[in-house]
Amino acid sequence: MAPATLLKYHAQDGPAEEYTHVKTESFHNANTPASPNARKARHTNVAGTDNSKDEELKSPWILHPSLVLKEDVLQKWGKGEGEIPDPDEVLDLKEERKGWHGYVEWELYPERKARVKEWMKGFDFPSAPEFQFVPLPKTNPILEGVRWKQYHYALGKATKDIPAESWLWVQKEKSPDMIHILQFPYNGEPPRDRLVSTALTTNEDHFVRNHGGIPEIDEDEYFLDIGGLVNEPKRITMAMLKDEKLFPRQSNIVTIQCSGTRRIEQIHQYPGDGDELINAPWGEGAIGTARWTGVSLKKVIKYCGGLKYPDKPMHLEFLGADTYFKQGEVYNYAVSVPWRKVKANEVLLAWEMNGQPLPKIHGFPLRTVVFGYIGARSCKWLTRINVLDAPSEGPVQKKEYLYYNSQVGKHNVTYSAGFSIQDMLVSSAIMSPVDADQIIHDGKIKMRGWAYSGGGHWPVRVEVSNDGGSVWYEVPHEQMSEKYFYAWRVWEYDLPVDAEGWLELVVRCWDNSMNTQPTFVRSAWNWDLHVTSSCHRIKVFSINRSRPKTAAKLKMYEESGIPFFPITKPSAVPLESDERYAIEMAARGGRDPLE
Amino acid sequence: MAPATLLKYHAQDGPAEEYTHVKTESFHNANTPASPNARKARHTNVAGTDNSKDEELKSPWILHPSLVLKEDVLQKWGKGEGEIPDPDEVLDLKEERKGWHGYVEWELYPERKARVKEWMKGFDFPSAPEFQFVPLPKTNPILEGVRWKQYHYALGKATKDIPAESWLWVQKEKSPDMIHILQFPYNGEPPRDRLVSTALTTNEDHFVRNHGGIPEIDEDEYFLDIGGLVNEPKRITMAMLKDEKLFPRQSNIVTIQCSGTRRIEQIHQYPGDGDELINAPWGEGAIGTARWTGVSLKKVIKYCGGLKYPDKPMHLEFLGADTYFKQGEVYNYAVSVPWRKVKANEVLLAWEMNGQPLPKIHGFPLRTVVFGYIGARSCKWLTRINVLDAPSEGPVQKKEYLYYNSQVGKHNVTYSAGFSIQDMLVSSAIMSPVDADQIIHDGKIKMRGWAYSGGGHWPVRVEVSNDGGSVWYEVPHEQMSEKYFYAWRVWEYDLPVDAEGWLELVVRCWDNSMNTQPTFVRSAWNWDLHVTSSCHRIKVFSINRSRPKTAAKLKMYEESGIPFFPITKPSAVPLESDERYAIEMAARGGRDPLE
Repeated sequence: MAPATLLKYHAQDGPAEEYTHVKTESFHNANTPASPNARKARHTNVAGTDNSKDEELKSPWILHPSLVLKEDVLQKWGKGEGEIPDPDEVLDLKEERKGWHGYVEWELYPERKARVKEWMKGFDFPSAPEFQFVPLPKTNPILEGVRWKQYHYALGKATKDIPAESWLWVQKEKSPDMIHILQFPYNGEPPRDRLVSTALTTNEDHFVRNHGGIPEIDEDEYFLDIGGLVNEPKRITMAMLKDEKLFPRQSNIVTIQCSGTRRIEQIHQYPGDGDELINAPWGEGAIGTARWTGVSLKKVIKYCGGLKYPDKPMHLEFLGADTYFKQGEVYNYAVSVPWRKVKANEVLLAWEMNGQPLPKIHGFPLRTVVFGYIGARSCKWLTRINVLDAPSEGPVQKKEYLYYNSQVGKHNVTYSAGFSIQDMLVSSAIMSPVDADQIIHDGKIKMRGWAYSGGGHWPVRVEVSNDGGSVWYEVPHEQMSEKYFYAWRVWEYDLPVDAEGWLELVVRCWDNSMNTQPTFVRSAWNWDLHVTSSCHRIKVFSINRSRPKTAAKLKMYEESGIPFFPITKPSAVPLESDERYAIEMAARGGRDPLE
Repeated sequence: MAPATLLKYHAQDGPAEEYTHVKTESFHNANTPASPNARKARHTNVAGTDNSKDEELKSPWILHPSLVLKEDVLQKWGKGEGEIPDPDEVLDLKEERKGWHGYVEWELYPERKARVKEWMKGFDFPSAPEFQFVPLPKTNPILEGVRWKQYHYALGKATKDIPAESWLWVQKEKSPDMIHILQFPYNGEPPRDRLVSTALTTNEDHFVRNHGGIPEIDEDEYFLDIGGLVNEPKRITMAMLKDEKLFPRQSNIVTIQCSGTRRIEQIHQYPGDGDELINAPWGEGAIGTARWTGVSLKKVIKYCGGLKYPDKPMHLEFLGADTYFKQGEVYNYAVSVPWRKVKANEVLLAWEMNGQPLPKIHGFPLRTVVFGYIGARSCKWLTRINVLDAPSEGPVQKKEYLYYNSQVGKHNVTYSAGFSIQDMLVSSAIMSPVDADQIIHDGKIKMRGWAYSGGGHWPVRVEVSNDGGSVWYEVPHEQMSEKYFYAWRVWEYDLPVDAEGWLELVVRCWDNSMNTQPTFVRSAWNWDLHVTSSCHRIKVFSINRSRPKTAAKLKMYEESGIPFFPITKPSAVPLESDERYAIEMAARGGRDPLE
């Protein structure tokens, strides 16, 4: 075959970031470049711009300041020159139920969905931000989620305030020092070191990976509908669920993990899918462990007379009250798990997290908790359970959380080419030290981290290495937290380190089925950047004070009051005296050979 | 040994960049935070600051606007309150010779050097910029060299204009699209692809690694002093050198390489020494090949009656007219090579580069060209040759260009622990494609690059890999440039590539002594970040249009007018139709096992 004319894209020359970094105090600071065929309506006059025409617009509905409505679709909604159609008029969206703020039902109303799909075509929403070929923003939130805010804004009063309200819940319910990976829909993880300081994660520190806004549901008005291929469809209230005469209480310590955990390692080495909803650049903290209390879904299904075809490979679909967008269409969050999983009492309908009512941000008043599965199946703000004879057709189940082989990419990807991520695999992470740390020690470096295996397994062995994975040290069982069937173990270890300079510290976990982790990020890279399951590696610069030369040099820095760190800061003093140099060189026979 | 209390430095939390990015039109925009014990004098009033006191200062000499003079050393120079000492008064520096602009002699005047050392203590020069733990600035110049400009400024009229004048020579003599690694002292390399488009590098494109400013020397006023342990010390003019009755003409094609070539790979993976003079973040272009013409230094030494001790391990020290700073002291550039090297006719005193007079920036009117050695020994603006019985004591020879083992770092480094980099090793680079390229091809990817071996060797074989270095393809000899004893070879190859997704392309060279390159950057990392000699690796995203699925998807993008690149931009269209998905999933037996 003849050599091709290359069509190359140089990442270095890539597009400027089409994205405005967030200031946390303002939701509405996105700047979208206006398309030639577009017009903007603004909240307020911007000094120096001519908004007079916009000011005359008749609509009582005010667009998000950076939303752009396409000129050529205005007529479609029966509007004349200079008029902006009002989504509340056009779409007529309402909150579905009393006491269910922020909930719009989509799946029961196909015409409503279709109308929104048409309406959404009227906007030039901004592109997803490019953060994979460029360094991550140093902001917190790291990413804002401008498009998703605008999606919510574009549909009018029923959804437009949801981004702002959700952010208030983040501030109310989460630790103030969370790492906000994505502001909306909220994705956040706690500081590394604190996460592994206890085996159970506090509610404030537990990671959050939401796919939409946070609905506010009155527990007294709450009910759950169970339907589909079940013998006796039922509507169940919280009072019924909490009635121990109806349903025995179940409580389990369960680790929930996002399949995006440690995604930054894949992003940094091999960028991949930007995804419709931003593939959040998670660190090692998209995992948490809590005691969840509620009832086994199995008992609830039994209460509904059982499944119509219990011996077939049935799926139970969970629908949430949150709104999800995918390629210009709107959905309620929907995922499913196989009946086998429910039958094993591994799916909880939970209302308590660590002995407290569920926080709003974690699914109040009721969510599913699916043991050993990807977190995405643990549906929050549960509205409905549908019994199906196949997996959910919801985009989160069908089109996302798919695990591709390493040759799949934008050029050839199809949903069917990936397999569905359900059971979670064996994994681990070093939470302290962190990558690029420069550490003065006396021959040992303290490491801390977590280890986990899902899918019915548990971590039995943790091993660490100071040499990139040639020699491994087993973490003694005394330095690991208790074993649970459905939870991680946190660990710590004083790793012997003799060598100096840059070392690669590595961790790997073995589970009770002898599964362990692939060696390198490369070994399991996949287009959607899921499950970074390879051995976790960090680089640290080792400075071993138990070595005399090192101790002497450190002492010199200390006595002279010159900071030693960072190591790349040039030494302010000569590295060696001329006298010492002469002695050393003489001992070496000078620079050149004898003859 | 008990586990240490860790003293850790987190690079992420490191100091803000103490560095103002350069705008090329302005030399004087550096901002140095004022120290409590310091006072600034300024060229001009800055709106809103009180410069009235500064304005009253008596000195006719105006400080660099961001230079900071320490209050407590003012008295030392006999100045009263409110007076700034004038370096021209205090130091009395003059240009050394008529027709030698920008040349100050230091080595012959120890008292002058000592006085400057004291004077330099009066300033708070800014820190070296931190660019190793943070991404490189996207500016061009990448780094400015603020401190080095200020060193020159601080010494008064004899040196203060050198940075600005040198930059003018860059603009006059180098290609406009050079990658300016460091503005002053000037370090620059040409665009990757062009560098390997010819076996001989044009003078405009040849990389430059200067250690000081560019002197402007009148050829008619030029002479070279040869002294030290030579039988008949002589002063030699250009006219004498060019007199073929005195010295036979010698002309060679020689590759000169900076030992910093490809340093960015070390920086990105394992940061190291920031160095006194910035360890410039070179790419793959700090190498160039030219036909150099002049006379063999051996003949000139013969003309001086030969060496006093020709059988001893003598060194020939070359001194340049440029000024070099090291840890608060001042020097002329000085390096040395062994007599053996000269005896082999491998050291040229050159005045022609590719048939043209030496450009100013490359050492006009005379420089040394040392074949097969690190470029640093090819001394520009040659003023003097000293015959010594040991290597030069100049800091460039003694304290820099040292090759350390991987456990040496700021905590234990001594000059004697490194060996002196003289002979250059076998190396190579891929110049096209470049890292992170996303390439549509039909089964072959065109690669281009260079391969080199110094130290008396030459490249005989070049091999490339598309799989990270498991399977290697030899570049056919027809696709390599001619062999020379002292030069690189440029090459190109249409690499067969079947696989899609992220691939690692690799190159390695074998020289005539069967030397080849270490496997990974890690294999030869060293504290001073010299000679990145490992196999050069780049990541490219392969999109193989000869595969039907890929061809179909690319066609769809083309027909819909949606740009395909960058790959991380989410697909604007569904990846697969619902109908196709259903067919594919049925063929796979659905998501779950049968029973």
